[in-house]
Amino acid sequence: MAALNTHYGELKASYLFRTIDAKVAAWQEAHPGQRLLRLGIGDVTQPLAPAVIDALHRAVADQAAPSTFHGYMPEVGAAFLREAIANHYAERNTAVDVDEIFVSNGASDDLGDVLDIFARGITVALVEPAYPAYLDANIMAGNRIVQVEASPEEDFAPFPPEDLVVDVAYVCSPNNPTGAVFSAEKLAAWVAWANRVGAVIIFDAAYEAFIRDAEVPRSIYEVPGAKECAIEICSLSKTAGFTGTRCGWTVVPKALVREGMGLNAMWVRNRTTKTNGISYILQRGAAAVFTPEGQAQTARAIEIYRENAAVLMAALGACGIAYTGGRNAPYVWMEVPEEVAGRARAAGESPSWALFDELLDACGVVGTPGVGFGLAGEGRFRLTAFGNPEDTREAARRLMERFGR
Amino acid sequence: MAALNTHYGELKASYLFRTIDAKVAAWQEAHPGQRLLRLGIGDVTQPLAPAVIDALHRAVADQAAPSTFHGYMPEVGAAFLREAIANHYAERNTAVDVDEIFVSNGASDDLGDVLDIFARGITVALVEPAYPAYLDANIMAGNRIVQVEASPEEDFAPFPPEDLVVDVAYVCSPNNPTGAVFSAEKLAAWVAWANRVGAVIIFDAAYEAFIRDAEVPRSIYEVPGAKECAIEICSLSKTAGFTGTRCGWTVVPKALVREGMGLNAMWVRNRTTKTNGISYILQRGAAAVFTPEGQAQTARAIEIYRENAAVLMAALGACGIAYTGGRNAPYVWMEVPEEVAGRARAAGESPSWALFDELLDACGVVGTPGVGFGLAGEGRFRLTAFGNPEDTREAARRLMERFGR
Repeated sequence: MAALNTHYGELKASYLFRTIDAKVAAWQEAHPGQRLLRLGIGDVTQPLAPAVIDALHRAVADQAAPSTFHGYMPEVGAAFLREAIANHYAERNTAVDVDEIFVSNGASDDLGDVLDIFARGITVALVEPAYPAYLDANIMAGNRIVQVEASPEEDFAPFPPEDLVVDVAYVCSPNNPTGAVFSAEKLAAWVAWANRVGAVIIFDAAYEAFIRDAEVPRSIYEVPGAKECAIEICSLSKTAGFTGTRCGWTVVPKALVREGMGLNAMWVRNRTTKTNGISYILQRGAAAVFTPEGQAQTARAIEIYRENAAVLMAALGACGIAYTGGRNAPYVWMEVPEEVAGRARAAGESPSWALFDELLDACGVVGTPGVGFGLAGEGRFRLTAFGNPEDTREAARRLMERFGR
Repeated sequence: MAALNTHYGELKASYLFRTIDAKVAAWQEAHPGQRLLRLGIGDVTQPLAPAVIDALHRAVADQAAPSTFHGYMPEVGAAFLREAIANHYAERNTAVDVDEIFVSNGASDDLGDVLDIFARGITVALVEPAYPAYLDANIMAGNRIVQVEASPEEDFAPFPPEDLVVDVAYVCSPNNPTGAVFSAEKLAAWVAWANRVGAVIIFDAAYEAFIRDAEVPRSIYEVPGAKECAIEICSLSKTAGFTGTRCGWTVVPKALVREGMGLNAMWVRNRTTKTNGISYILQRGAAAVFTPEGQAQTARAIEIYRENAAVLMAALGACGIAYTGGRNAPYVWMEVPEEVAGRARAAGESPSWALFDELLDACGVVGTPGVGFGLAGEGRFRLTAFGNPEDTREAARRLMERFGR
């Protein structure tokens, strides 16, 4: 009898978005014709930049004629895109070699797959609250999870615990869901810790384009020593609206060596065995993001999302509700107001879900309960800045109407 | 110290295509200006069908405007493409439900990834000679390999050995590299075997579009009982020239249950955790393959490759060289002529590589040594029908000049 991966039986059913969908459907049935404002799922709403659209059309046209047709692409990524990404790092004075860059179908595709080059049953630290797929991918791999709680006292961006000894640590900055950013000092502490204990940091930089404060690192490689301990996973999903178009990249430095094995060479072998590369068409579209026109155009979409975040922050400020994120991140992580949280606690219910119900019922606003990102998220609530500006302004107005003082 | 996957150290260096590249480069330097005919790597040369190009352009245009923009796609695939694929099976009277179909980035991407739902260290049978990635992906997973040798006596498509007991078996029909096809009788024997011992068959159907004989199954699900034991992995790479465009699908039947766990539900969980779906643009292009225009146009490209195969088969026939494949497959698997094989054996060298050198030196033709697909391929040589027709005819002429009687 074929032996299966029994760790799948250890996964918790993922009720979060299913429960949200069910609640929203019920609300819509009860409120026919009423306007629902979705600030829940972290999906983008702005279309692709014109420079990207042009490049995609040209690449499609290339595939129509024998003389310009592209068959198999290099599994690690096309030279033209790897070079564009290397230049993107170089422009910020971060040295990443072309052959340290692996083009991917997106960050989420590599965040789990990269575990293949590690042993099974390792110990993995997650800074929580966290993107739920970190946990599930590691449960599937039979890994032991150590939770590093991100607390409000550290602005949801903790230093590594003194006594932490694990094989791998996932760190995400700007953070999903908290919008927190790790300062250079904090990242340096993580890098020093990893190099001391021999751990590998998987650094999720999917939201780096939202950083506006110059002193906040946009890449972990801005920190000395990171090339010896960190894999960086990045994406065009939020930078350039590629959530449904798909393309990203992963950096595995050549200096990253553990137990005498080079992780870069291992990842080359993984990719050449388990993939046949990323679509030529998508790689051409992705490369256009890094042209001057592409950069200017994608910056305008990001500016729209930043304004959305500012609108949400102003509303929460006006209501006297504490929050983190928003400034260097597309997520605003709000505290559940005490009037809602207190009532929920008294009833033995989840404050995060109580606010979800309250916002849906009273305001027609959909967000994401913080507890959906792990127990460390209880009592908090995530609003995204990826909605359309009009909906976001209306949601802010309704928030103030309900919680304003 | 982070523990790595030490099985990577058990992988053999993949010298095959690197050695070929080095030999070809040396030949080109020694023969400046001379025409090299590449019948080696299995990459396509015909451009995408006009219907696919149109659909890709329309999908790119959709991504340019907020009202038609697509963000995150369902991780298992878009409904429009899953339905088109289900209809494609239904047209051949094969019942595959929409929610048994998982859209992928291509067959090679899923052939290794699907191992994630099995335990590590399982026993896996490979029908050899075989696509090298089967072996490497299983070594990476720490699995034990059992080689089932495909012999000329069984036309390179063996019945399952009587005493075979493994967890998983990879079967590829039409076969890469041998071009052999598994008859309904042989597939029925594999299905009966798998259901008897509880094994799972991973059926690689990437070349199904090349089958012309009506009695040869194009899907393993044409065989009763296959839904209870087989995963089918398919691709548009060779069907519709998607090697560099990327899109395929994997079928995991709901009736496939082992140790009380449903593999379909496990693969849903894997995809929703480890991917964010396939590009909207590519899925639209893929769906166009299944329209009447797309089917007619891709059939014309396949006809070109079939004619190439016929040209190669005729040349080998004229030379009295034995071969398999070509009729229902894009690969022609030729025996190394005895004059070359005998000389090689006398010198203690590989007959497959001796023919490679001979064809390159005497004819300027590049093929692939059979031994590159495992020891069972020694003494054989793979020619592909994916070249352009003019090159293929010229290669056939040179073959006849060199080996004709």
